[in-house]
Amino acid sequence: MNAAAVNHQVVLAARPEGLPAPEDFAVQSVPLQRPADGEVLLRHSFFALQPSARLHMRASSYRASLGIGQVIPGNAVGEVVESRSPQFRPGDLVVHRDGGWQEFSVCAAPALWRADASIAPPQAWLGVLGTSGLTGYVGLLDIGRPMAGETVVVSAATGSVGSLVGQIARLKGCRVVGIAGGAAKGKLAVEKFGFDACVDYRAPDFASQLQAACPGGIDVYFDNVGGAVRDAVWPHMKQFGRVVVCGLISEYNGAAAPGPAWMDLLTKRLSVRGFIVVDHLDRFDAFVRDMGAWSRSGAVVAEEHVTDGLESAIGAFIGMLNGQNHGKALVRL
Amino acid sequence: MNAAAVNHQVVLAARPEGLPAPEDFAVQSVPLQRPADGEVLLRHSFFALQPSARLHMRASSYRASLGIGQVIPGNAVGEVVESRSPQFRPGDLVVHRDGGWQEFSVCAAPALWRADASIAPPQAWLGVLGTSGLTGYVGLLDIGRPMAGETVVVSAATGSVGSLVGQIARLKGCRVVGIAGGAAKGKLAVEKFGFDACVDYRAPDFASQLQAACPGGIDVYFDNVGGAVRDAVWPHMKQFGRVVVCGLISEYNGAAAPGPAWMDLLTKRLSVRGFIVVDHLDRFDAFVRDMGAWSRSGAVVAEEHVTDGLESAIGAFIGMLNGQNHGKALVRL
Repeated sequence: MNAAAVNHQVVLAARPEGLPAPEDFAVQSVPLQRPADGEVLLRHSFFALQPSARLHMRASSYRASLGIGQVIPGNAVGEVVESRSPQFRPGDLVVHRDGGWQEFSVCAAPALWRADASIAPPQAWLGVLGTSGLTGYVGLLDIGRPMAGETVVVSAATGSVGSLVGQIARLKGCRVVGIAGGAAKGKLAVEKFGFDACVDYRAPDFASQLQAACPGGIDVYFDNVGGAVRDAVWPHMKQFGRVVVCGLISEYNGAAAPGPAWMDLLTKRLSVRGFIVVDHLDRFDAFVRDMGAWSRSGAVVAEEHVTDGLESAIGAFIGMLNGQNHGKALVRL
Repeated sequence: MNAAAVNHQVVLAARPEGLPAPEDFAVQSVPLQRPADGEVLLRHSFFALQPSARLHMRASSYRASLGIGQVIPGNAVGEVVESRSPQFRPGDLVVHRDGGWQEFSVCAAPALWRADASIAPPQAWLGVLGTSGLTGYVGLLDIGRPMAGETVVVSAATGSVGSLVGQIARLKGCRVVGIAGGAAKGKLAVEKFGFDACVDYRAPDFASQLQAACPGGIDVYFDNVGGAVRDAVWPHMKQFGRVVVCGLISEYNGAAAPGPAWMDLLTKRLSVRGFIVVDHLDRFDAFVRDMGAWSRSGAVVAEEHVTDGLESAIGAFIGMLNGQNHGKALVRL
């Protein structure tokens, strides 16, 4: 590389409000950064546009908010042009997950993924064999855990992740229903990606379309969009259903941070489970052994709020709902 | 038992709106039901008042809505007075989880739990060694999975479930912060139940009290109440935190059904997980093996939306956020 070489990049020029405008971005030319010891310089052949980049443009985000003048983040694939690591040689094809919207990037060698052009062309390592593919694969199989015969619903069904989730779910023997905006996307989901059905969230009869497409309810909801679509889907969830919160794209452009609960759930990778004790009676013996011992030793103490006589139940119950007592509310007969 | 014997019971007289009133209940006398083959008749010595009974009084609920004239549900403990099952004899101490607010009940023998008075007195089998205890034990240990040193927050901290959750969490080496209404409950939580701290959700400085009590964030939130308390707690959750949704008592009295998402989450026992793919890079090899094979065989196809040149990224990105393309958005350099 010529020492005077330059790198062109797209940076954040202004913090967008709502949908970004072209003026929020700037293209600039900077001197080419050279790799330090253990680093590699690569020339990008493709970079990816990712909805999460919009999230990073917010004033607060789950990772350091993108500063004005910083390169827009995105995965990139390209060839090593200079290596100061024994792991790579010039000409190697690699993926840099923080390559960004620019022509060149420098990366510590251990953080690069090796791409194998004999398996798939370079750009596939950003998509079907890259972060999008891995997201769909892990999110559906490990987090959603679908079983053959179950119904899987996927929002943003024709997106880079959603389209793969639908196809993997079909390969696993599931009935797969997509949600996408407009008839063209619906057709694509069914005809190209093999969804059993695809529902148009922009249609006035979205709710009844969804109901008709999932007559037995939904076992797994793979959510890429959040917002109003989520609110429409949840009532159709079946008992013991799993919801995979992969993205909240419908909420990324909002001026206010999306409802704290949902953004926290995604960005902090929370697990939330509803449970009802009757499903766990197989734990009764272990419970009585442990709790019996703790109770006898005084390690666990219990309060009781006892009232006497059948009729005392009514007032005691109302008081309990009103926060007026504590411990276990019992009626003695 | 005398054939002319009667049973007294409390039934639903009117469907309550908001906090139930005494007029919503009625006490009635009915002829004593006799056990059929395989059933047992028991005389209740205690029955329990459970917040979930309020939920069952709603016009729609996760189990059949309680009808006007039906006995209010609740666990009961008592002695067998007549048995038509070889499993039980008169005098046996048993728990009937659907005993209800009445003096006597009949139950199929296999549905009864045997209570052991040598371990704890009868009423304990409705509380610390009953459904409340099992709820706290399973909910905290199996669903919340706390580890020593973690911070566990429990709402309704002095309630029958919350007080036990806090004590179990302390036994497991956690820092435990309760949430309860009023200074008296806070004192009880700390002094009797051993919570490290208890925060008053009715205090004007609730948010800052909570922040001060959980300076490092929250690993496990055991939620019995939902509503505004949940909204205050979630922003303090740490990455990979777990939220156990055990109850939504603050929402049970509401005229409208609580937000569908939360009631669905609880009553359908949903699991919801946010995830970000960078945490799952250990799955990359398995992913490339599977997805590479699916991709080569055509079992999985991928769409690409490619634009050319660095500057094309800006318009393509805005279009993507605006739902104008599908498949993987790539920029070719």
